[in-house]
Amino acid sequence: MSLIPVGILHSPYKNISETPRWGTLSDEEATIEIFPEYEEALDGIEKYEMLDVLFYFHQAKRDLLKVKPPHSDRLRGVFAARSPHRPNPIGLTAVRLLGREGRFLKVKNIDAVDGTPVVDIKPHKD
Amino acid sequence: MSLIPVGILHSPYKNISETPRWGTLSDEEATIEIFPEYEEALDGIEKYEMLDVLFYFHQAKRDLLKVKPPHSDRLRGVFAARSPHRPNPIGLTAVRLLGREGRFLKVKNIDAVDGTPVVDIKPHKD
Repeated sequence: MSLIPVGILHSPYKNISETPRWGTLSDEEATIEIFPEYEEALDGIEKYEMLDVLFYFHQAKRDLLKVKPPHSDRLRGVFAARSPHRPNPIGLTAVRLLGREGRFLKVKNIDAVDGTPVVDIKPHKD
Repeated sequence: MSLIPVGILHSPYKNISETPRWGTLSDEEATIEIFPEYEEALDGIEKYEMLDVLFYFHQAKRDLLKVKPPHSDRLRGVFAARSPHRPNPIGLTAVRLLGREGRFLKVKNIDAVDGTPVVDIKPHKD
């Protein structure tokens, strides 16, 4: 079970400490660059206002089973949290699509650092 | 970038042809079995009504960049579709948590076949 990067995030957040915990807390714009060999997979994406973006948190710790969320003083299981630290460090963010230029998507509501690998994009489902 | 299965889905759908395209079209119950070594990661999950479950569609075609959704007669890019066929065959389903018994979660609104590997669970975010 292996993943391949299909793109990369260009985000205003250069490190984790300045990255918002929730993308909806942020109005900053970011750009998702899809690699040329996958550009065709974007066909028709313009009609969606909201997208689910799957990231691979390459800096996450995969051996943590419990974390303490910032707003809490109790440990909880990582499957009951959206921490990047988890056995499979896949991040899921619902982003607002502002526009597309070729293989570049301008989006809002990002909560991942600059340079994070993108592994998938899907139309968001409410 | 590798993934490891953290559990497996026990679903009433034994093959793709009988699996609903959207989990919300289904009232059937299913069970997510988390493997013993990850049970601790479930701590605190009971308080969430809705969960995002990430599956690995091991039977998907990874070299397709366009698909024709069932309700459409036009090809579209896989990033503009929720087809299981995509470069990284990760499925995302929002399920309703009906109950937990140890490392077994009873859920509703599943759209994946019996035996599908589970790679992650997160509290659902609206």
